[in-house]
Amino acid sequence: MAPRLLPFTPGASDAASRARRGRVVTAHGPIETPAFMAVGTRATVTGLTPADLAEVGAQVVLGNTYHLMLRPGPDLFRRVGGIHRFMGWNGPVLTDSGGYQIFSLAADRTVGEEGARFRSYVDGRTHLLSPERSIEMQTAIGSDIMMALDVCLDSTADATALRDAMERTHRWALRSLAARRSEQALFAIVQGGVNADLRRESAGVLAEHPFDGFALGGLAVGDTRAEREHITHFAAELLPADRPRYLMGVGTPADLVHAVSAGIDLFDCVLPTHLAWQGTAFTSTGRVRITRGPAAHADVPLDAGCDCSTCAKFSRAYLHHLFKCSEPLGPRLLSLHNLRHYHALMAEARAAIALGNYAAFAKQKLDAIDRHEHSDRRLGGAALPG
Amino acid sequence: MAPRLLPFTPGASDAASRARRGRVVTAHGPIETPAFMAVGTRATVTGLTPADLAEVGAQVVLGNTYHLMLRPGPDLFRRVGGIHRFMGWNGPVLTDSGGYQIFSLAADRTVGEEGARFRSYVDGRTHLLSPERSIEMQTAIGSDIMMALDVCLDSTADATALRDAMERTHRWALRSLAARRSEQALFAIVQGGVNADLRRESAGVLAEHPFDGFALGGLAVGDTRAEREHITHFAAELLPADRPRYLMGVGTPADLVHAVSAGIDLFDCVLPTHLAWQGTAFTSTGRVRITRGPAAHADVPLDAGCDCSTCAKFSRAYLHHLFKCSEPLGPRLLSLHNLRHYHALMAEARAAIALGNYAAFAKQKLDAIDRHEHSDRRLGGAALPG
Repeated sequence: MAPRLLPFTPGASDAASRARRGRVVTAHGPIETPAFMAVGTRATVTGLTPADLAEVGAQVVLGNTYHLMLRPGPDLFRRVGGIHRFMGWNGPVLTDSGGYQIFSLAADRTVGEEGARFRSYVDGRTHLLSPERSIEMQTAIGSDIMMALDVCLDSTADATALRDAMERTHRWALRSLAARRSEQALFAIVQGGVNADLRRESAGVLAEHPFDGFALGGLAVGDTRAEREHITHFAAELLPADRPRYLMGVGTPADLVHAVSAGIDLFDCVLPTHLAWQGTAFTSTGRVRITRGPAAHADVPLDAGCDCSTCAKFSRAYLHHLFKCSEPLGPRLLSLHNLRHYHALMAEARAAIALGNYAAFAKQKLDAIDRHEHSDRRLGGAALPG
Repeated sequence: MAPRLLPFTPGASDAASRARRGRVVTAHGPIETPAFMAVGTRATVTGLTPADLAEVGAQVVLGNTYHLMLRPGPDLFRRVGGIHRFMGWNGPVLTDSGGYQIFSLAADRTVGEEGARFRSYVDGRTHLLSPERSIEMQTAIGSDIMMALDVCLDSTADATALRDAMERTHRWALRSLAARRSEQALFAIVQGGVNADLRRESAGVLAEHPFDGFALGGLAVGDTRAEREHITHFAAELLPADRPRYLMGVGTPADLVHAVSAGIDLFDCVLPTHLAWQGTAFTSTGRVRITRGPAAHADVPLDAGCDCSTCAKFSRAYLHHLFKCSEPLGPRLLSLHNLRHYHALMAEARAAIALGNYAAFAKQKLDAIDRHEHSDRRLGGAALPG
């Protein structure tokens, strides 16, 4: 049986919820959980340096195996000695398996038991992404935590399709474990869509094996917020308490606050950076679309309650001006702020758990978010889905 | 007679050239000359923060009145109290007059003695840019140094056209001086193309008036490097030695090294930032096109002789990857490096002048640049014009 490679110490837990503090220890330092992982798809969190990431409180960066296998490719990672040195980030890195991108992005895709064949968007050549090939790629990338290749479906697909995908995901997870030759940790991904029975079965099967952590995959793809919250709450409890629990690709601040109360330890989501590049900021008083009229003359910080350098040094009026001029400093400053918003929220959550009052903290946060979204809708639509 | 508002102390000069050290004192701090001014067209040096500018050794930022009058417009500058606060840059700012952009960019332009009428690219409305209106705009922007509106022609235009433009430039300069109501310094612009007689006349006329400094305008627009060097050398000597001399819109590192030896104190140019966004870096061993093949596997700094944070932390291979993926961190890191290259060159020039060996320094620099350009051409064309 393969050894477990990722020390995880569950810490304080909350009396009135399943929220828990914890610490994951990697070769590149610890991750205090619950933690949000900044998404660095192509070995870069778009527009930001590793020093910027440290400034916003990022502990761990996520890289996308699908994109990195196509460019710059595994040979370059082997040559430079891995992603940490390549991108200049010395903290922990988690790589996904490529599964999500294969099923959502890849052209000319054919999937069989062996793996998925698809055409590269870089050079048009056909690639095979199998469980073994994904582990080989993630080994070359040199992440601290690898993910097993999974089969992703729309979470509301029919039960037969969800079962087939889940069972293949289990077989692929075991092949991934068998293929590992490095000291990198490996997480399995629980599938089953919004079907509670399948989620229970998936968690039960995978928990029998010495994975270093478990993820809930296939959420935030077609499900409603209520479905997502229900399945997260239900499935998180089925995962072994002695290993980290990772909710993949989720979500809004409200999603995170809820999922922490379900006992989730790790998150990733492109939302804070993607919305920043579109000109939308998360603030302590709701979402702000910086390109809209009211920002044009607003000689005030983006968020008076934020301690990031964007809020310390620049006004909404200046950010509005940068976006109106398509100046790249605008998205850079908004990304920095949005990532700080997420990381500060996680730091607050950790503090609340340590104090034993996470449930009260969560209620207050969720009430405030609902109030701002309601007020945004009443004012004519600064709110966004989720 | 208007008072002179910009203390300038000429310092050490070089025995074997006309190079000189100096210090300009503005309300936002001193500028040690010779100095390069980073171009912050729209109140932002593209992609970089004021902290980045401080890191590369920038002393003074240039803003473009033409662009800023159209967006965000003078009212916003009045509301927020000027460009320093707006963009978060507390050092000196120089604004150009808008003349160059009117003659090179503006649509539906008609020019008369009063000024230039043109159509805004922001809202399609017609604007008048007159000497008085330019001063009014620059007053609202709140720069430390304003430029008088000038008439720009291709430097190789015929003598009659050059004379007409020059004479109108003189009338406009005096109207600008009369229009000033603030404590901001005002520079006049010497015109005359590549015609030595006109340059002599222009310098003579303008030097009779209490401008705080003098610029050479209308170069690097149609002239060859040899013509530009000849006129710079000739005209710089005609400008009063007790006031700063500014060579507008020039140029390459070689142009700067030469012009310093002619006694020029201030420079601005978009080249380091524009080329960075296209993937070209200035290095101590010549220009590097980071998108080209050799960079793909080069696990070495962009420039081993550079002390910027890009060269300290990232490899050519990583920069190549960022550009291949169209990731905005690539241009950001290259801009930072190119601006550091320019500012380090100016710092070296100041040190050489202080030591009295600028002529030797300049010869060594120009020889090295020529050698790298020759070698680039021999290798098939990494060299660029100039």
